Amino acid sequence: MKKFLKYTPIKEALATFLDAITIHTGTESIPTIEGLHRVLARDVVASVDLPSENMSTRDGYAVRSEDVNASLKNPFTFRFLGEVKIGTPPKFRVGGQECAFVSTGSMIPNGADAVVMFEYSKRGGNKVEFIKSVEKGENVTYRGSDIKRGGTVLQAGTFLYSQDLGILSALGIGIITVTKRPRVSILSTGDELLNPGQKMSGAKIYDTNRIILSALVKEEGGIPIDLGIAHDDEDEIRRKLEEGLKKSDAVIASGGTSVGEKDLLPTVVGTLGRPGVLVHGIAMRPGSPIALASIEGKPILLTPGFSVSCIFGFYIFGRAMLRKILTRRELDGVLIRATITEDIESDEMTRFVLVKLIHQGSNVKAEPIHPSGSNILSSFVRADGYLMLAPKSSIKKGQNVDIVMTRLFSANFNPR
Amino acid sequence: MKKFLKYTPIKEALATFLDAITIHTGTESIPTIEGLHRVLARDVVASVDLPSENMSTRDGYAVRSEDVNASLKNPFTFRFLGEVKIGTPPKFRVGGQECAFVSTGSMIPNGADAVVMFEYSKRGGNKVEFIKSVEKGENVTYRGSDIKRGGTVLQAGTFLYSQDLGILSALGIGIITVTKRPRVSILSTGDELLNPGQKMSGAKIYDTNRIILSALVKEEGGIPIDLGIAHDDEDEIRRKLEEGLKKSDAVIASGGTSVGEKDLLPTVVGTLGRPGVLVHGIAMRPGSPIALASIEGKPILLTPGFSVSCIFGFYIFGRAMLRKILTRRELDGVLIRATITEDIESDEMTRFVLVKLIHQGSNVKAEPIHPSGSNILSSFVRADGYLMLAPKSSIKKGQNVDIVMTRLFSANFNPR
Repeated sequence: MKKFLKYTPIKEALATFLDAITIHTGTESIPTIEGLHRVLARDVVASVDLPSENMSTRDGYAVRSEDVNASLKNPFTFRFLGEVKIGTPPKFRVGGQECAFVSTGSMIPNGADAVVMFEYSKRGGNKVEFIKSVEKGENVTYRGSDIKRGGTVLQAGTFLYSQDLGILSALGIGIITVTKRPRVSILSTGDELLNPGQKMSGAKIYDTNRIILSALVKEEGGIPIDLGIAHDDEDEIRRKLEEGLKKSDAVIASGGTSVGEKDLLPTVVGTLGRPGVLVHGIAMRPGSPIALASIEGKPILLTPGFSVSCIFGFYIFGRAMLRKILTRRELDGVLIRATITEDIESDEMTRFVLVKLIHQGSNVKAEPIHPSGSNILSSFVRADGYLMLAPKSSIKKGQNVDIVMTRLFSANFNPR
Repeated sequence: MKKFLKYTPIKEALATFLDAITIHTGTESIPTIEGLHRVLARDVVASVDLPSENMSTRDGYAVRSEDVNASLKNPFTFRFLGEVKIGTPPKFRVGGQECAFVSTGSMIPNGADAVVMFEYSKRGGNKVEFIKSVEKGENVTYRGSDIKRGGTVLQAGTFLYSQDLGILSALGIGIITVTKRPRVSILSTGDELLNPGQKMSGAKIYDTNRIILSALVKEEGGIPIDLGIAHDDEDEIRRKLEEGLKKSDAVIASGGTSVGEKDLLPTVVGTLGRPGVLVHGIAMRPGSPIALASIEGKPILLTPGFSVSCIFGFYIFGRAMLRKILTRRELDGVLIRATITEDIESDEMTRFVLVKLIHQGSNVKAEPIHPSGSNILSSFVRADGYLMLAPKSSIKKGQNVDIVMTRLFSANFNPR
């Protein structure tokens, strides 16, 4: 009727799981402006220098720096040659004691090697008086100083932020190749589950895991596909999982992965194809009944029905699974360093502890949230992140720890 | 021809700008499952207890804890009453030396107050032997222990993450009210600007700011509206800005906010309505030529054309502007604490320094990126975040500083 699970260490379980994922979603070409939070499929190499010419970074006068040694008490007067309009190549060359007006973004005319800021000048007719000296290269951005032609600008696997789209655009790249978003089927199982809108009756509960997993999949750049709720029925679960494998690149199902009589998920997955269940039982708390499977290269993550276990299952295995499919370079969540406010220790399992972050000056304190029973979703709502404590280890109050953020922490930002 | 700007401190400029924003985008009702990264418009109060009954958190046997004082050497034998199926109210009451099988998520029958885990039991016929004692409340989640009926679950202004959608679903809330996404018109100005696909010719550059701003607006939950590129022409800029104000809730325009002859943006905005330009010139570097304006409650952010100044302009003013419109509680970006690797000081302006984060054990080091001239977009691509140094101040190597992340930092996460 029941069996005891052998608990696999997290690292080993994750490595086994990721190795078994061979599915590729392929690539697609999209306009750069649509590229936010997509993953670059190929290295991008610059085909031009950036900037393409020597440019002024200020409004002022382009000069030969060696000629200017002015100060407020000892102003220098130069001959005015004209203005270099933005977007237009200069028509003249700057010689000794000569200058040309340039704007921010104008090309620097030949001969000149620095720009005296407008604020330190006074023009009268074709003469300009300077009250400050200037160093060679001052207020000038040299050709290729931002990006050199032939250099790798962004590597394959980069998760694209706005500044990345900016540099691609600066190189004139209007179309980029990214990995396709993986489709992820999501199933909840359990006779006790209701959908929102259904009438509550004794001992039933509203399903939360499909909603949570759907949002987590979206955050990681996947496309959630809702398989609904299955009863604790072997045939119904098999039909749903087969539908999921057919429709999508990965499947996440929750409920029934413990060792009770209703633990149908791992049993059914074992009959769906090769290699089937890879790991059942992980040395982590919460989340020990998690099972990891793969059917012909498509990953299946089976988590307990309790939401906190389900969320940790996604954080540890679901996130890495999706990032591998997306070919994203970093497999982990967002980290913050914080100081723990109390002693914590673990038993033979890796322990996850939810924490609230408290910002004090330039210190961030991580305050453990008690109790964090596996059913307590409200503690997850209060938390800003979690820490992960290896088996049989401890941390002492005042030590620094890595916190993985579950809510992007945003405090009042005061400049020092 | 030229005027000198008076530089307003950042805090003062931001307060003035936010005060002038009176536009509301209103609210809308959406399915909870669509709520990721939206902002809750109203407090959510629980209309039920969660869980709605006392529930088991384990597979095992529900008992009266006072009756069980067993150990491996001194097992206790109880009478088996039957099984409590998940989703079904129990049909019996547990008395002295009696037990009932419960699964994870089953209701606890009346009389029982604890669950002995399955692993510490052995059943034979209608007898169950226990080899471990149990404390009152062990493996039980009490009615209302997660959320109490009448309590505020989530406050108005909360930016919704997956766990928040989970708790809303657990309460049976299938529809939520969120603030509408603000529409933000984005304009680039400058005769030198090209769109991707257009042929490069001497002294021209590809426009990057519209692409960057569009992505930043999306990241903050706004809907970008592309107004394209305007030439340095007063009438064309006026038409575009008027179009932007008509079509959207806010406008961001870049280029021409310095004090050069082409600084048309603040001039034109001054003619569009009341109150017009609020601040022109901010004591920050990069970004000093930024102008902040408002026309009948709709904010207008005018940034220099240089991308790094434009991005900082968005981070400091654009983000707060959108979060105010969205009624989001926190106005700042994501913070991480790190240790600076070199001395840094500022002049009379607030100084922004881009940094690369380096993770070493539980320490995060922030390494300043040099040079960070205002034209250097590649430094932004290399950076993980920035620090903000108040005017006339300094930080010493080894001090802790707040870093605002520009790329969500994700290192290899090793449990301690």
